Amino acid sequence: MPNTIDLNADVGESYGVYELGNDEALLRQVTSANVACGLHAGDPSVMRRTVKLAVALGVAVGAHPGFPDLQGFGRREISMATHEVEDLVLFQVAALAGIAAAEGVRLRHVKPHGALYNMAAKDARLASAIAAGVAAFDRSLVLVGPPNSALVGAAGAHGLKAVSEVFADRAYRADGSLVPRHVAGAVIDDPEVVVQRALRMARENEVIAIDGSKLSLKAETICVHGDTPGAAATAGRLRQGLLDAGITIVALR
Amino acid sequence: MPNTIDLNADVGESYGVYELGNDEALLRQVTSANVACGLHAGDPSVMRRTVKLAVALGVAVGAHPGFPDLQGFGRREISMATHEVEDLVLFQVAALAGIAAAEGVRLRHVKPHGALYNMAAKDARLASAIAAGVAAFDRSLVLVGPPNSALVGAAGAHGLKAVSEVFADRAYRADGSLVPRHVAGAVIDDPEVVVQRALRMARENEVIAIDGSKLSLKAETICVHGDTPGAAATAGRLRQGLLDAGITIVALR
Amino acid sequence: MPNTIDLNADVGESYGVYELGNDEALLRQVTSANVACGLHAGDPSVMRRTVKLAVALGVAVGAHPGFPDLQGFGRREISMATHEVEDLVLFQVAALAGIAAAEGVRLRHVKPHGALYNMAAKDARLASAIAAGVAAFDRSLVLVGPPNSALVGAAGAHGLKAVSEVFADRAYRADGSLVPRHVAGAVIDDPEVVVQRALRMARENEVIAIDGSKLSLKAETICVHGDTPGAAATAGRLRQGLLDAGITIVALR
Amino acid sequence: MPNTIDLNADVGESYGVYELGNDEALLRQVTSANVACGLHAGDPSVMRRTVKLAVALGVAVGAHPGFPDLQGFGRREISMATHEVEDLVLFQVAALAGIAAAEGVRLRHVKPHGALYNMAAKDARLASAIAAGVAAFDRSLVLVGPPNSALVGAAGAHGLKAVSEVFADRAYRADGSLVPRHVAGAVIDDPEVVVQRALRMARENEVIAIDGSKLSLKAETICVHGDTPGAAATAGRLRQGLLDAGITIVALR
Repeated sequence: MPNTIDLNADVGESYGVYELGNDEALLRQVTSANVACGLHAGDPSVMRRTVKLAVALGVAVGAHPGFPDLQGFGRREISMATHEVEDLVLFQVAALAGIAAAEGVRLRHVKPHGALYNMAAKDARLASAIAAGVAAFDRSLVLVGPPNSALVGAAGAHGLKAVSEVFADRAYRADGSLVPRHVAGAVIDDPEVVVQRALRMARENEVIAIDGSKLSLKAETICVHGDTPGAAATAGRLRQGLLDAGITIVALR
Repeated sequence: MPNTIDLNADVGESYGVYELGNDEALLRQVTSANVACGLHAGDPSVMRRTVKLAVALGVAVGAHPGFPDLQGFGRREISMATHEVEDLVLFQVAALAGIAAAEGVRLRHVKPHGALYNMAAKDARLASAIAAGVAAFDRSLVLVGPPNSALVGAAGAHGLKAVSEVFADRAYRADGSLVPRHVAGAVIDDPEVVVQRALRMARENEVIAIDGSKLSLKAETICVHGDTPGAAATAGRLRQGLLDAGITIVALR
Repeated sequence: MPNTIDLNADVGESYGVYELGNDEALLRQVTSANVACGLHAGDPSVMRRTVKLAVALGVAVGAHPGFPDLQGFGRREISMATHEVEDLVLFQVAALAGIAAAEGVRLRHVKPHGALYNMAAKDARLASAIAAGVAAFDRSLVLVGPPNSALVGAAGAHGLKAVSEVFADRAYRADGSLVPRHVAGAVIDDPEVVVQRALRMARENEVIAIDGSKLSLKAETICVHGDTPGAAATAGRLRQGLLDAGITIVALR
Repeated sequence: MPNTIDLNADVGESYGVYELGNDEALLRQVTSANVACGLHAGDPSVMRRTVKLAVALGVAVGAHPGFPDLQGFGRREISMATHEVEDLVLFQVAALAGIAAAEGVRLRHVKPHGALYNMAAKDARLASAIAAGVAAFDRSLVLVGPPNSALVGAAGAHGLKAVSEVFADRAYRADGSLVPRHVAGAVIDDPEVVVQRALRMARENEVIAIDGSKLSLKAETICVHGDTPGAAATAGRLRQGLLDAGITIVALR
């Protein structure tokens, strides 16, 4: 059992004059960058600048496609037809892949964003549409989703490899779903607890659920959040904690 | 001197429920399709449907990037920074190229749309930004622009081949520019006159300007318009007239 | 019991160069116009042109707000927060009201469009958000929704009058909901049957459901569709059939 | 000659999750708020929140319409037809006016944003289109523009009052135009100099141009910028400096 894990972060979420996140600080801590593709966040120039930065810092580049909803930042559920979702994902992945090619790198993975990710975790038809959009473009791309989700489950039938993503700073329910953010205890603020959870995830593929039960959870990549002030610092502690425990941090492949 | 020419048409300009043009009829008459890329017209599903149709009809596929202006259909001049234009073109070409790859073909050419085309015909910095965006993605793509324009002139410095486009149904001024549409005589309606002009363009690289003078005009591809009711029929006559005169109609390469 | 009814139609659904529907022919047959407000269809110039036309033809003007989703034409369900829906409706109603004022008329009614209408028919919180948005702007506006729906039910608490809308060309289920379009028999094509159903609706507030049962259905306005080729002709027959039966066709108030 | 002046600020420029500026701090220093109307910045919920805040702080509310260009923040010149500009302005002013009405206030003024403002300063046809859009909605609105500009000049013919706006923190050329930002000395950083310039503008309607010449400049409202870190503090010093000099700061009317 290889003691390796990937750290990923969502980046490139600025738009025009609107700045969001601290991509540079975050990218210094992770091995995989999920770059927004222009429809829920990002614009062509933000995308290119972000890819350049990831390349300069040696971070693997992946696409982070979302619903076409800048105002809602891709967090609103939208009832698109599945063939529309397939084409929407293909469009975004292709656009980012071309920008990556212009910067000398190939995309490594695709992780859907926000509502698209959450809906596809449960909805097999939507998950299949996403996988179809990715596979139509490039079957060597890795599809990222929650452990045991419909999203991860859809990859194989389309010839894609899937990778399971976990959140070290979020509480899980016994059924493997995340505790919604508005519930007390949903977000874990103590960096030491975050590190301990990440270690258990990385080494044993398990986590203690909010009800105290032990939950099996395949952990191949840990998502590092960037939307809080201390995000990059927490990511740094997480990274160091993993390294100190002898775990190799390496990009998805 | 090879007696060959390309016929091109702008297609894929529908959006969501909004239908525009009669792509199938038009694509039956031409050898190169300029497919809108989602920012001034087209959406991911329209793009894919249009590429599928072009492939099925054996028509070469190219990108037709425009300003991000659906309401103005890309016909409004917009003062974007040149680096933004470069990224905008790269984004659109990449997105369409990925959709084309999903349908089993490679893009052959790029022809800017509307105001982007017209501005780049005269503005060397803008033309260079467009060429840079195309070249960053794929130097084997052919850049299409007006004869003797800044757009055609910008290709070489970026390692791109350029091709000169003419309009058989539009009057030219002695300086090689098109007579604006609102001027009487700007648009030539008589299909026989259109065919005669096309033949002279294709065989002799010249046309009679609106002031009666003879204008040299490099003609490598003729644009066929699709926005009038009889457009496909006129395109058919043009195609037949060229074939009858022994001219080979063949896609750009 | 007054033998009167209103005929309404959705208009102003063009956008930029994209033309949709035949507003003039349709507006000649109805008494109330539901004008799209720029977010799912329509743009400022289309809105103004449509209001001008309605005013010229003596048709009452109302707002037809929808989700911000031009690509999906407002037919996709979007999970917006209720306070966002309230502000979204307020924004659209206000924009159209200002354009109407510029053309010398006051808005008479508001009818949500597409997914917003269908979701609000069943979702009391969403319906209340819509009513709140309308009431915040002008409590004299009439809110249009399906009979017995949450949408109609929400009006009173916000000080608004509500009006029940029926579809003479659509089959109903015994529970009062519309038979979905993809089900056989969902759409009634025979103009004579449409007229007979409209008469029964207008005179007796009832209709025969698809299972043969008699359904009570408050009918204060009948929606006339414009998205089929013969739409205006069918609307004309419906109008004449109602007039021939002695029913007065008059705008909402 | 009344020793009064207005201080105005552009606010409500956030969009969805994207936050821009520090509206509350800025609104505490000014008498007039120019609220973005949803097309170059702002969304319906941002607009409403901003109006609420202005009302709570006793600041007069005006509309700040711009080109439909969120990515370019309304700073890109766009060649729209004049009738489109008229309708675009009408739409935005009406939408904000309705939101203001929902919050219990009437709009007091309209100040075009960014490229629309700059273009209309010089282009009489565009200025007239803007004034027409405002006047079509409400002739009691005050139109704000640069002294001696085409924008201010267009108001009268449409029955509108115009007000001249000056910038205390920007250098002027002898012809009354602003020194472009990229020129050294264009922006005046020293708060004391800003205050002195503002005093001279407010009391004497003149300013020393960058070439040392004395420039007559009608000053009825001073624009306070909010896009720099110390913006609110500078605004506070400006306000205090004017008050200390016995000048009354009062909203446009």
